[in-house]
Amino acid sequence: LCVSAGDFLWLCHLMQYAMTICIVRFQPKDVTVAVPAGALVTEAIHQAGLHVNMPCGGQGRCGRCAVLVEQNGANPGVRRRSSLRLSAADVAQGYALACQSVIEGDGSIVIPPQEKIERRLTSDRTAAAISLPYTYDPGQDQPLRAFFVALSPPTMDDQTDDWARLQRALRQEHGLERVTIGLDGLRKLGRTLRAAEWQVTAIVETDTWDDPDGAARVVDVLAGDRTERLLGAAIDIGTTSNVVYLVDLIRGEVVAEAVDYNGQIVRGEDVISRIIYASKNGNGAGPPDDQRNGLGELQALVLETLNRLLLRAARRVKAEPEEIYRVTAAANSTMTHLFLGLPPESIRLAPFITAVNQPPPVQAGELGLSVHPQASVDCLPGVASYVGADISAGVFSSGLADTDKLTLFLDVGTNGETVLGNQEWMLACACSAGPAFEGAGVGHGMRASAGAIEEVWINSATREPTWRVIGDQPPQGICGSGLISLLAELFITGVLDRSGNFNRQLGTPRLRVGSHGPEYVVAWAAESAHGQDIVLTEVDIDNLLRAKAAIYAGYTVLCQRVGVDPAEVEQVLIGGAFGQYLNVEKAVQIGLLPDLPWERFRFLGNTSARGAALALLSREARQRIAAAAQQMTYLELSADNSFYENFISALFLPHTAMERFPSVAAVMNGQTTTPQGEGVAG
Amino acid sequence: LCVSAGDFLWLCHLMQYAMTICIVRFQPKDVTVAVPAGALVTEAIHQAGLHVNMPCGGQGRCGRCAVLVEQNGANPGVRRRSSLRLSAADVAQGYALACQSVIEGDGSIVIPPQEKIERRLTSDRTAAAISLPYTYDPGQDQPLRAFFVALSPPTMDDQTDDWARLQRALRQEHGLERVTIGLDGLRKLGRTLRAAEWQVTAIVETDTWDDPDGAARVVDVLAGDRTERLLGAAIDIGTTSNVVYLVDLIRGEVVAEAVDYNGQIVRGEDVISRIIYASKNGNGAGPPDDQRNGLGELQALVLETLNRLLLRAARRVKAEPEEIYRVTAAANSTMTHLFLGLPPESIRLAPFITAVNQPPPVQAGELGLSVHPQASVDCLPGVASYVGADISAGVFSSGLADTDKLTLFLDVGTNGETVLGNQEWMLACACSAGPAFEGAGVGHGMRASAGAIEEVWINSATREPTWRVIGDQPPQGICGSGLISLLAELFITGVLDRSGNFNRQLGTPRLRVGSHGPEYVVAWAAESAHGQDIVLTEVDIDNLLRAKAAIYAGYTVLCQRVGVDPAEVEQVLIGGAFGQYLNVEKAVQIGLLPDLPWERFRFLGNTSARGAALALLSREARQRIAAAAQQMTYLELSADNSFYENFISALFLPHTAMERFPSVAAVMNGQTTTPQGEGVAG
Repeated sequence: LCVSAGDFLWLCHLMQYAMTICIVRFQPKDVTVAVPAGALVTEAIHQAGLHVNMPCGGQGRCGRCAVLVEQNGANPGVRRRSSLRLSAADVAQGYALACQSVIEGDGSIVIPPQEKIERRLTSDRTAAAISLPYTYDPGQDQPLRAFFVALSPPTMDDQTDDWARLQRALRQEHGLERVTIGLDGLRKLGRTLRAAEWQVTAIVETDTWDDPDGAARVVDVLAGDRTERLLGAAIDIGTTSNVVYLVDLIRGEVVAEAVDYNGQIVRGEDVISRIIYASKNGNGAGPPDDQRNGLGELQALVLETLNRLLLRAARRVKAEPEEIYRVTAAANSTMTHLFLGLPPESIRLAPFITAVNQPPPVQAGELGLSVHPQASVDCLPGVASYVGADISAGVFSSGLADTDKLTLFLDVGTNGETVLGNQEWMLACACSAGPAFEGAGVGHGMRASAGAIEEVWINSATREPTWRVIGDQPPQGICGSGLISLLAELFITGVLDRSGNFNRQLGTPRLRVGSHGPEYVVAWAAESAHGQDIVLTEVDIDNLLRAKAAIYAGYTVLCQRVGVDPAEVEQVLIGGAFGQYLNVEKAVQIGLLPDLPWERFRFLGNTSARGAALALLSREARQRIAAAAQQMTYLELSADNSFYENFISALFLPHTAMERFPSVAAVMNGQTTTPQGEGVAG
Repeated sequence: LCVSAGDFLWLCHLMQYAMTICIVRFQPKDVTVAVPAGALVTEAIHQAGLHVNMPCGGQGRCGRCAVLVEQNGANPGVRRRSSLRLSAADVAQGYALACQSVIEGDGSIVIPPQEKIERRLTSDRTAAAISLPYTYDPGQDQPLRAFFVALSPPTMDDQTDDWARLQRALRQEHGLERVTIGLDGLRKLGRTLRAAEWQVTAIVETDTWDDPDGAARVVDVLAGDRTERLLGAAIDIGTTSNVVYLVDLIRGEVVAEAVDYNGQIVRGEDVISRIIYASKNGNGAGPPDDQRNGLGELQALVLETLNRLLLRAARRVKAEPEEIYRVTAAANSTMTHLFLGLPPESIRLAPFITAVNQPPPVQAGELGLSVHPQASVDCLPGVASYVGADISAGVFSSGLADTDKLTLFLDVGTNGETVLGNQEWMLACACSAGPAFEGAGVGHGMRASAGAIEEVWINSATREPTWRVIGDQPPQGICGSGLISLLAELFITGVLDRSGNFNRQLGTPRLRVGSHGPEYVVAWAAESAHGQDIVLTEVDIDNLLRAKAAIYAGYTVLCQRVGVDPAEVEQVLIGGAFGQYLNVEKAVQIGLLPDLPWERFRFLGNTSARGAALALLSREARQRIAAAAQQMTYLELSADNSFYENFISALFLPHTAMERFPSVAAVMNGQTTTPQGEGVAG
């Protein structure tokens, strides 16, 4: 054995650990485990049968797995390798990232209450994640303002009308030279002024993206001083999932979030079926808001979902939806059309044309969106029929539009939009993944909310599964990250072959033939929340394979088009409903993500909703999203023969060409699952 | 007898006439009369029992009494003293103004069909009366334009969205740099473009008064080339009468007119009762368009009237109301509030404040006005609670705002607004005349439409009346000019005393006591259209006296305030529903108008509607109306003690101080009724 001095020291270090067993006690559940020194805290937590949220997949990026290490004298027994996302004060108090901290001695660790997924983004920590790259200054960044004015009451010597009196005060006290008001505002103005004894707060939109030099507009006039809080909403209208962020425009923070499936799902799972449904009955030629036609019905369904979410989010901060005075919306082009009641049929027919990529601002009352009726609703700009505002928002909020690194951006939603490029150029396509990864189109699929199985491990000997459920409760179904994890584990443990068929020779009771054909039982009825078996069928697997193959084919075609080897991609930014909770290893194992060093992947969660929130917070962000939309070149895959070839090749696990996935091949050959790169942490 | 040579020749001329009897035959009724040479054609027509319209009262100003003199060889028997308003071609054909032409020999005259009052303004001649002081050029004057564009259809190489494609064409072909569109426009855009095979007409509002540099707005997109006609509507919303002018914005002409009573009359005759009614039920605090409250009901009533008029006017030119793409509205401040659904209560309570004097432009669909839903409705600016946009429009369209003559402007409507001034200064007041002169508040009063008695003569010996009816048909009632004429004749012939009481000693069957007290029978049941007696009661007379006294007191206070003797007033411009048909002599005899030389009076008809039409035709006119509103100083009569004194003194016929009406005193003393001035004609 010939080793260098450095390697020798390293080996000694390892051996020292190997000899030491540490006793760690976890609170508040009071569970004690014995682990070898050098183990990660997350490994100890897992061994204890406990759970800590780890949405970034253990990369030390999200800061969500923070635990409190009790300070037992000089040696608390835990060494931090990284404390990203933790403040100095947090560290001083003893907080450590479970995924980035190593156990070196006995100790006691407190696991804080783990929030359910639905509430994760309501914490201050996540609000900070949706912050601008500079200090937020409403006066500078914000087109929506709340101005308090104390008017001089009218007299026989000053018979100035109510509206001119308010205009005069806004000019004199706040420098607003030109101000307009709508009819509804005028209708209540006189009574509000008199009831408030002439002391009022004017909610004013000072400018709009399409008329930055235009007149300011009074959205509402409220009695008294109401400048302490000003709410806006950023909404993301996905084909499958809808998200509402409630944003405090004074402090620049997300204060509440609400998520649910898009109510339109009952009328079709992908945009094409929605477009076809929209033309139903009278070919949509009637009044667009007539619910008897398909378009009117679909618009009503999504508004119903959004209005419910707006109400839920508002109630969480003890507000009424009518106190929301401005809205930004990011959606794919079809969802934008259906939201606005615009006939979408030309999106589906060659040459695939939208009615509008950059809709003008509309007022909420005109749409039927339950916020303040005079609130402006700013639908962010899209690029083309199949690359919408959600992607413009995503390439901005993900940082792709600002980086000089060759970057692949994947929005793993129903439409599978993919962008390759950097701050200089961007090429975009959409590959119709379908809703499988959002939990729809899969028998026991569900959204990533409480009760969803979000990660699965399968014992390679017994083929028995264990799983982690969001909210630490009996499972109701499986969400996107759980499905990817399950698929990968079934494949790696040989339950599934490379074509996605079950190996029915295994003799495990988990494999059986159900009413939908062969299936694997993930949870028995006795374990589940609803008393029924939770299964994954070959039909479900087919849908999942088609979804991952479409995404793989999409980014492969983009790379081929610009002559780039996928291995040259310097970073992969992943957005989408589950992006935040995805396990890279598993996603590579099924061939969804390219086989790159793990540190090149960043999971960003809902980049569309985040982009909408940034556009709501800042004029500049709004302009840069528009610039990104302008900059993107759209590649129509239906006009590209190589897409179909790439799709077919990718319908296997992980791919027909196994050499494209060397790390998976290594695992299959019994090698370690350590990533190719130089380490995950850091 | 000592005469000059000139006088001698003149006398000879007269004697020559006196000796000559001319035989005139009128066609098409084939009636022949013998008149002394020198008689006016109008006198001959009257003698023949025929009728010709003479809205200017025989002053040769309106051109409406044109008749065709048949060219019997060299001497047609008629000499024209003036041919104002007749074109050279008209004169060459033989047309002459009946009121300005003298019969000098035998002849034959054709009286053209006399239009009913309602249609008078639909003739080309009246359209000319509502023309700009320069050649109309839509490209220069008009913010509403119809642009034809032929778009290149989309291809796979040009996937530009529909709206951006239209914007691009409007920019390239018509130089429109910034254009917006509303949601409704977007909703139908795609289908229109495809149905029209990409050849469309965009109806575009290029700018608005409150944002002259703002973006142009697409109001609608129509299939094919529709640039040949573009309709707008100018509406005048009087407390009593509503008027709609339909205007062709390509040619700059009024093409149809419709008039009716304001449907709100059933809820109160003057603005104060309307304001009180508006607060009815829940004090108007509910939604403003809720018809269960008074405000909502009043708004619905006036919209119903206006929508009916818009439909009627549109149908006259074979158009639908939805083809009206822009509206200007002139109204007093209360009517503006009720039209827009703005609570008017503060108008009535000291210090008398409107919600708004200059409403922002609103869209017709938002109001419920039945024109194109995206048409902008521009409510012209008012001055104060009791001097509204109708007066701003009136002082502009009457020429007061442009003259250096000391001018009195009277709007003889329900509110009796009065303005004294010239282009340098204007002092305005309102004196609540009530609706009597519009035919309301008088038992047998009616609007100046077909079937209304518009002039009355009473035989001073028999006290028997003769009358002229609009439309030459059995009478249905008496309109404003008829009431003034009737009141004056009753007074001059001694049927009424100076206090407005009937002289019941006269012994004529026309005087009797009816269910409402003493009354004079103007038409017996057998003569009337409805088979009932048409009468004037002492109650009616009281209302008329109050109305004329209020107007008299109004202008008297204005004169006193600026230290001007009413005799110094250089011109009196009279607007209002009946202004066009008023007889000066009679109006002076009852003390409504000051006793000035007749040529100082000009009857302008509906100056408010005309101002609205001018504002619709021209950006400059619109701006100058706003400037006039700015320039006017409002005098609050309720804060002026002298108004009441003047009002009380004026409740007599013609006035307590008879010396203020020397021409009336002369008539009462049996002198000639010749006006004080140097002649009416010319």
